[in-house]
This record gives sequence, structure tokens and C-alpha cells, in this order.
Amino acid sequence: VAGAGLAAALVMHPVSVYYLAGTGQPANVLVVPGEEPVLFARRYGDLVRRDTWMSRVLDGAGFSAVVAEAERLGVADGPLGMELDVLPAALVAGAGRAFPGREIRDVSGLLAGLRAIKDAGEVELMRSAAELFDAVHATMLAFLRPGIAEHELSAEIAAALRRAGHDGIIRQHRWDARLPMEGSLASGENLATISHGPIAVTGVGMSGAFPMGASPRVIGAGDLVNIDLGMNRAGYHADMARTYAVGALPDGVERYARAVREIEDEILAAVRPGVTAESVYDAGVAAARERGVEGIFQGFDGLHGPYVGHAIGLELDEPPVLGPRVATVLEEGMVLAIEPKLISPAFGAVNLEDDVVVTAGGCELLHPLERAVFVVDETGRAGPVT
Amino acid sequence: VAGAGLAAALVMHPVSVYYLAGTGQPANVLVVPGEEPVLFARRYGDLVRRDTWMSRVLDGAGFSAVVAEAERLGVADGPLGMELDVLPAALVAGAGRAFPGREIRDVSGLLAGLRAIKDAGEVELMRSAAELFDAVHATMLAFLRPGIAEHELSAEIAAALRRAGHDGIIRQHRWDARLPMEGSLASGENLATISHGPIAVTGVGMSGAFPMGASPRVIGAGDLVNIDLGMNRAGYHADMARTYAVGALPDGVERYARAVREIEDEILAAVRPGVTAESVYDAGVAAARERGVEGIFQGFDGLHGPYVGHAIGLELDEPPVLGPRVATVLEEGMVLAIEPKLISPAFGAVNLEDDVVVTAGGCELLHPLERAVFVVDETGRAGPVT
Repeated sequence: VAGAGLAAALVMHPVSVYYLAGTGQPANVLVVPGEEPVLFARRYGDLVRRDTWMSRVLDGAGFSAVVAEAERLGVADGPLGMELDVLPAALVAGAGRAFPGREIRDVSGLLAGLRAIKDAGEVELMRSAAELFDAVHATMLAFLRPGIAEHELSAEIAAALRRAGHDGIIRQHRWDARLPMEGSLASGENLATISHGPIAVTGVGMSGAFPMGASPRVIGAGDLVNIDLGMNRAGYHADMARTYAVGALPDGVERYARAVREIEDEILAAVRPGVTAESVYDAGVAAARERGVEGIFQGFDGLHGPYVGHAIGLELDEPPVLGPRVATVLEEGMVLAIEPKLISPAFGAVNLEDDVVVTAGGCELLHPLERAVFVVDETGRAGPVT
Repeated sequence: VAGAGLAAALVMHPVSVYYLAGTGQPANVLVVPGEEPVLFARRYGDLVRRDTWMSRVLDGAGFSAVVAEAERLGVADGPLGMELDVLPAALVAGAGRAFPGREIRDVSGLLAGLRAIKDAGEVELMRSAAELFDAVHATMLAFLRPGIAEHELSAEIAAALRRAGHDGIIRQHRWDARLPMEGSLASGENLATISHGPIAVTGVGMSGAFPMGASPRVIGAGDLVNIDLGMNRAGYHADMARTYAVGALPDGVERYARAVREIEDEILAAVRPGVTAESVYDAGVAAARERGVEGIFQGFDGLHGPYVGHAIGLELDEPPVLGPRVATVLEEGMVLAIEPKLISPAFGAVNLEDDVVVTAGGCELLHPLERAVFVVDETGRAGPVT
């Protein structure tokens, strides 16, 4: 905070407060250089005090409590840091009236930088979040049969995730992003209908109000089905995707299944400390070009998602994106979701997504599931296509 | 917009865009007095044009496209309206740079006012959303037995909701509010542990990161269990709650079950066009006082939620709150969630929540489920306690 030239920072985003103070209760954190940080319990002070490792906890929901404490601490002149990419404009304007004459600067980048490097305990929590995909995979093997609708399959996935200990919500940093717990499930022609969300295999949803995720489409024999979802355990996320085929792999898809696996191999080989996010993206694009599939890599018909992955942690969409012109240098301890996909109306989509922690020598996958398209037969056995 | 003294309004909140333009794709709406509104497709222009009833649709994700169109339309001098309680400060600051010299004013209240009165089609959609509670109630009867954990029961509710056609997400207006699809499930001592969310029967959650909703607590014979959830079908929400008892009603609870039902009766009797939101709240408080339960009405030990309900629609938490000092006058066509609850560490909680549409003569419930505590026996039959 001092290094950023700020007189103080007022942190209000629940995810940041959880990171700094260890409580998920409604609370704010005031950080003043050279002083103990102060945690303001907006409600439920007893629970806040039970949860937090911070030693200074005050009760108070509004800005007046913060202003009083800032005055008591003799906060120096200068800018106040707030999370301007998350907090509503009206809330920040309220802070401006409470702290008149102070410039308010964005501290989201500063907080994201603190959160980018995961310690061993955080990596274990994310490994545990990735283990939730075991429940998803088992559900696909048990329920993916001709005649089930996408939303019925999504229902089974939702139940399996909750039973396995999913926190029940997905945290995303972007103000207008929302995802169901059971993620985006898509099949058949819905695989190549990119709708509502990022340029990805999104599915088309149950209604025009939220046209993303599972739809009522009935899945048939020979269909491809893709599941791509965030998983949240104890606040930490994983993000994985696999494509499944019902009974048999459609003609011509084996080539794409092999290509997406090889592209992911090359992206994983490019991940190590010291390289830029852009260089990892470039490795993916080059691998797609070598295999003659750049026209359907991360989209088609000129609509291509400009990324091959992103960082992940307490939020599903942490910076950096692994994309063009992103100069962020990877460091040991970062956790990244790697997500190559080939999408085309000609066959649908084949998709992989896996999470890795950046290690001294490269990177390590957080979940051991085979990186393949799985062909599910009528008994629920799955043969991976490699 | 003109009546509010604005030169133009730029609407970006996905829920507002859906309301104005009928598309859930990423898009913005520019409203200029005296001109046809302009819909900007941020992506997926084909889907936007397929969905929307607006006739002027342009492609363009950034402010520059909006600025160019505003210049072409000769937008008058004067303030620009934006949704300042939803949009992040950084985004609004970007609009300020794109439209230099213009004051930016909040139009959230204006939009909420448009949305407050539901037409017959909207009421039907909300009735259909409330029907999703049939799936919840059937799940409680089928699965609520001694030995099931809260999160296992919540898993079954999630699956039942998705199968029944839930959109998969819950829309809330508050920037920092998040709810799982399957809402807040709580049992035993968790009924009176008010955590994370509004002052209500919140549950304590799976982890400290999101301490709300179902927890791993194992439900036992004689326990009370409460489920309170938002339900979203085709973008429109319902909000209902019921309390269930496992096998038998605990001693002394029948009195509270009867009291909460009678309090809800009196609140419902107070709802009609022309009265204020505050007067409905006052009716609830008076009814609780008459029955000697005001100390545990909407909370306990001095922590009482200052509301007996709220409006509902495309978002779960629409204005007005039915609370003290809320002067909003009820009108025919408003849809309200009415939610009296008695909460005490002595017995847990008994809770009702029902949705009503305000009619010319009073109000009409959107769902016919008996307003009672249900005692579920070992065969899954339920006897309501009245």
C-alpha cells in the first residue's frame, strides 16, 4: 500500500476480505502503512472474531466507522485505494464523500498480485477442488446415455458436486459474469453455438434470459457432449473440461481429439517460470497451426477466443489471461487453467481443460484424469480415445 | 429518460438489457429521448438479432461505438444515465472519459420503477417459477430422514430444480450477494446461527469462504429443517421457504408454527394497492407483538432483519423492501415475497415465505402449497401442522 503511494486502502470485495482476513462474513479491511490492519465486521461480529486471524476487529457497517478509525490512526494525506473494477460506482462515490478531497485509486491489481502466487496450502486446496471432477466424470459415465436431456445430465452433475462438498457458488471477478455450479454442458449442435459467455463451448441454456449451460436438448447416440465447469471447495477453485462421446466417436473426430491433446501437451511444455503469458498462448496457436486446425482453434469463422487459459484461485477468472499482448511473467506457485478447444459446426467441439501449478522446472497437473475424449458405452464403461 | 432530465441513458446491466431488449446475450442499450433505442451487440450479433424485439441493432463492444452513435443521433447536452449501483466504478469512469464533460447520473431507480409493475405474462412466468417449489417439496418428503446431511439434501434439491427447468443461476441486484441455486438449507442449531447473508435463516455453509447454505451437519430425528430459496425460470424469480420436522414436531414448536402462519395471514391481509411498504412491515411487527413473539420475529437478541418481505422479478431482491421508513406505495401488478420467520436458539426457526401479486382488491398467492410446518414421517408422508 505504501509502495503504491497510497495513504490507505479500504478493501470491500468479499473475496479479497477472505484472502486478507480469513473470514467469509460481511466485513471490510482498512490497511494503513505501518499500522496493524483493521477488520470491520459489518454484521455478525462474533463469527468474524471466531474466524479471523486479524487481531484488530471493530464493529461497523458504514463508512463512518472507517473514517473515525482512519482519523484515529492519523492516516496521511494522499490517495485511498479501493477495488474499482469490482465495487459499484455509487459505493465508491459514497467513499469519496466520506473521505472528501482524497483521490481514490484502483488496488485490484495490487491485490491480484498478492493472490497470484499460491502457497503449498492453497495448492492443496485447489488440488482438492480439482478432485471434485471425479464426481463429474463418474456422473458422466453413469448417466450419459441416449435419451437423457442436457439439463437432466446437468442435474445429476449438480447433485454429485454438492454431495462431494462443492461450496455451492462460483466466484468470478468480472461484474457481469455468472455461472451455474454445474458449469456449461453442451451437446450436438449446441457445441458450436457460442452464446452469452466468453468465446468458448458455452451451451445455449434453458432460456433466453441466461442462454448458457445445459439446455433441454435430448442427447442421442453418437453425440459429442462437453462439460466445462468451475469447482469451488473451501473458496478455492479448479476449472476443468472433458468431451465425451455417446456410444461411439463420430467419424472424423478422432483426428481432432488427438490434435487437442497434442496442443495441450505443447502448451503444458511451454509453461515454466520466467516466460510470459503471451508466449504460452503463442505455443498453443503454433501447435494448432502445425496440425492444420488453427481455423477451428478456440472458435471458428473468425470468432476465436484470444486465450489458451487463465490464472485461477479464490476466483475462477484471475489475471493473467494466457493471451496475446499479455506480458505478465509466470512465476513458481502460480496456478493456471489450460483450455485448448477445437470448435466447428462440422462436428461440434472437442475440449480439454486442466489446472497446473507452475513449478521450478515447468508445471504439474493438479488432477490425474486422462486427457482424452471418453467414449461411454451402454454399460457406463468409458474407453478414452488418445 | 427525458423526464429525468437526462440527455441519454446507457444501460449495461445484463438484467436490464434483457428487460428492455429481450436478449440475454452480451449487449448494451442506448436510450435517447425521441429516438428509437439502439441495441449494441457486444458479441454474437446473430443471436442478439434473433432474440431481440428492438429494430436498431449495431455491433460493438466498447464505448467508442456508443459515442459514435450518440454523435450521429445528435444527443443533446446534459447528463448521461447509467446504473451506478451495479456497474463497477472503473467502468463508469471509462464512460466518463468516452463522454467527456457530461455528468453521469444513476438510472437504476428509473429502471427499477419500470420493472416494478409486472404484466400478466410476467406474472405467469413468476407463477411458473414458484411451481419449481413443487420439486423442492417433493424432494423434502422423499429424502428428509434421520442420517442425511444438510449438503446431501441440498444436492437432491439442486438436481430436482435443474430437472424441473431452473435456469441454473439466481440474479441478485446487490453487487456482493451470491446464492447457490438450491438456496439456504439449515437444520438444528444452524437454524439460529445467522451467518454471512441477510439477517435470516441462512445456514452456515460448507466452508468459511462461503458460510451460508447447506453444511455437512447430519440431520437427526426430531430436527427442524428449513429451506429458503430463490427459483429462476426463464429469467423470472420466485422466492419461497418452508420448515419441515423430521418424524415429529419438537416440543413447544407448534405454538411458533401457528404464530408464524397467523403473522403471515395478517401481512397478506395488509397488502393492497395504495398502502406503503412500511405499513405492511408494521402489520407484521404488530401481529408478532400481539402473539408475544416480537423478541424472536425476524431474528433474536436485538439482531432483527428490518423487513417482512421485498419485491421480486428479474432479480430476487428488487425494491421496495417491506421495511421501516420505506414510503413506496404498493400498486396493482407488483409481485412481493412475504417472509415472516421466528428464530431462536431455544428451538431453531420456523419460517414461511410466499410470493403474491398485488391485485385490485388485495393480493393473490402465486403458489398453493399449504402455509405450514410439515412433519415428515419415515415413509415420506407429511402431515402439515396448522
